[in-house]
Amino acid sequence: MQAVGIVVEYNPFHNGHLHHVLEAKRTTNSDVAVAVMSGQFLQRGEPALVDKWHRTKMALASGVDVVIELPYVFSTAQANQFAAGAVKLLHAMQCTTLAFGSEQGSIEPFLNSYHLIENNRAQYNRTIKEQIQLGKSYPQALYLAYEQLKQQQPNSYIDLAQPNNILGFHYVEAIQQINSPMLPTTIQRIAAGYHDAIDVHQDIASATGIRKALFSGDSLADISQFLPSASFHQLAQWQQNHQQFASWENFWPLVKYAILRHTPAQLLQYADVTEGLQNSLIKHAANSATFSEFMNALKSKRYTWARLQRMITHIYTGITKEQLHAHTEPTYLRILGMTAEGQRYISAIKKSLQLPLISRVAAVSDSILALDLKATQMYRLGIEQFSTEKIDEDYQSPPIRF
Amino acid sequence: MQAVGIVVEYNPFHNGHLHHVLEAKRTTNSDVAVAVMSGQFLQRGEPALVDKWHRTKMALASGVDVVIELPYVFSTAQANQFAAGAVKLLHAMQCTTLAFGSEQGSIEPFLNSYHLIENNRAQYNRTIKEQIQLGKSYPQALYLAYEQLKQQQPNSYIDLAQPNNILGFHYVEAIQQINSPMLPTTIQRIAAGYHDAIDVHQDIASATGIRKALFSGDSLADISQFLPSASFHQLAQWQQNHQQFASWENFWPLVKYAILRHTPAQLLQYADVTEGLQNSLIKHAANSATFSEFMNALKSKRYTWARLQRMITHIYTGITKEQLHAHTEPTYLRILGMTAEGQRYISAIKKSLQLPLISRVAAVSDSILALDLKATQMYRLGIEQFSTEKIDEDYQSPPIRF
Repeated sequence: MQAVGIVVEYNPFHNGHLHHVLEAKRTTNSDVAVAVMSGQFLQRGEPALVDKWHRTKMALASGVDVVIELPYVFSTAQANQFAAGAVKLLHAMQCTTLAFGSEQGSIEPFLNSYHLIENNRAQYNRTIKEQIQLGKSYPQALYLAYEQLKQQQPNSYIDLAQPNNILGFHYVEAIQQINSPMLPTTIQRIAAGYHDAIDVHQDIASATGIRKALFSGDSLADISQFLPSASFHQLAQWQQNHQQFASWENFWPLVKYAILRHTPAQLLQYADVTEGLQNSLIKHAANSATFSEFMNALKSKRYTWARLQRMITHIYTGITKEQLHAHTEPTYLRILGMTAEGQRYISAIKKSLQLPLISRVAAVSDSILALDLKATQMYRLGIEQFSTEKIDEDYQSPPIRF
Repeated sequence: MQAVGIVVEYNPFHNGHLHHVLEAKRTTNSDVAVAVMSGQFLQRGEPALVDKWHRTKMALASGVDVVIELPYVFSTAQANQFAAGAVKLLHAMQCTTLAFGSEQGSIEPFLNSYHLIENNRAQYNRTIKEQIQLGKSYPQALYLAYEQLKQQQPNSYIDLAQPNNILGFHYVEAIQQINSPMLPTTIQRIAAGYHDAIDVHQDIASATGIRKALFSGDSLADISQFLPSASFHQLAQWQQNHQQFASWENFWPLVKYAILRHTPAQLLQYADVTEGLQNSLIKHAANSATFSEFMNALKSKRYTWARLQRMITHIYTGITKEQLHAHTEPTYLRILGMTAEGQRYISAIKKSLQLPLISRVAAVSDSILALDLKATQMYRLGIEQFSTEKIDEDYQSPPIRF
């Protein structure tokens, strides 16, 4: 049996995702799609709209055969560490190919860009450092260093200003770094850019657009055209139980409290909190009635929105630099769910797996897993800020079988 | 002018307190009463029913002339440190006498008990240590060691099983330790023991009884007979603004979150959290829907209720062992409020004060004061769990003039 690996957040699963997974299986001629999916907290430093079990059900109903959890230490890290964690898990799951979405739908520019940077690493790093010292944000500095290299050696390269291209680049990079035989490939995205608002005349919208619509008061029915029916059903069920979707805005009383119970110096212990921000975090938290008020006060040119949100994530979950940085290698494969076909694939590869497969967490003692259990507990307390209905705990949740 | 010092929490101010302050002034022939009052968090490890400004107003309307804040580091400490902090502040305020309430109303047994222990300190400490090793709580061990001494040398001693006597003992002890010329004296309490429930046929009830009545659903009108009218008025005003009174039960979502965002090892950094309890704290917080459920699960013979609540207080405010233990000496006198008579007294002693008088906190940088400001902020966030009306911040609150 042959598997294609994909890296996903499904926040929420929409028609674009459906297209991606079906095309990934078709073009790579794979029997199954293995998705590595972020748990309760995502790469942009946010709690997921609905918990990982609801998102797993959306995935399994719409073409994904196995869902493996991307541990918190990778899912909330910056792009290169996020990608490295995900690639290592897909490699461990013995996927033959890794298929990611991109605007152009051709893998060559990604490989060209990777080799360009790899062959000029010293110059690249030097430029990044210079640009950061000049006050640029990390992604901006990366972009400028890259543009400089491109001009030296004309070829077909990717546009590293596109969020999806950045991730794609890091998948390619990670595959090379671990010498994985996994073949990177890319599926052309259809319509809707990453940040586009929804367009009622289409049936494809970005997850960002869908979330915006949901939080600006649109009903689920208003966005149903963009969602496979299983996805709509899971969102509807969540809404019935909890009334609202998870967001920093809804978690705000706890976020505010988490920030304010620290001294500025203590805040620096948390992952991603950089020297110079500790006083602003406290000052703006004290004076803000809502999360968006807080973020708008905190935002500066130096840090991207996602970077600031990742700081908030780690302060909120109480996860320190030490805890996050101690973990760079995945130590297990946690199955969140699988289809019958997915189960057959797992049976076929089971004996040759290099990492332990975890289907029930209760019996396992692992420091990366411990942080995932904690992240679920913190997510759960956030939900309790607006809902009396509890979400599942990791201990209560065996893999979903679809 | 002559001042009598008193140590109070006024949670809330009731007729027994009125009797105490008036008798303190009368029997010591004092012009003014200076009260050192706990701020937002109290010695039993609880948030005060209403904030320190409401309680200051109650006091100033009912016989107290100056209210000085007992800083958090003392107000939430065990009895001897609580008493030592308060005595040092009253000494700094140049009070001639210190008048505390007791059952017997005679100071000799307190002095006898103090000298008995002081003259047999080695034996006393040895017995305490032995009893703690046998599994007794700290107050129990103290009591047993004391009973042993009493049998060796018959005299008139106080009963150290009474909470008010324990505090009185420590006031006497602290006065001796700093060689203060302040004379300890005691006012006999009338009716209602420390923990007694309210009795509708009397007009004296303990603060504990009043709080129990309030939290069991009695209306303010039901307890009005036990309160001076200013006290009733302040409680009524608070209730109108916030609907509920502050309590751990009302703060529970934040308390639970505060505990659960830590690893067991991290919890040990907070003041009063003792080795051996860190895992239970997390386990019971995760499984408890309410604060009382949590406390009942946590309670054991080894720790008193007050001791456990003091741990919760420090975890909630995020104040560490290091921060609490760095401070044993008051560094300022913060005036929460004063009457015209109180202001005359302050003018009279102002030039000879050994500690700086603080009436506005904004301009002052002091590490003990910083913890008080933080405690107010944490109290404020607790109130926001059930009320949209905010309480004052320290920065916004000049001394109350009555």
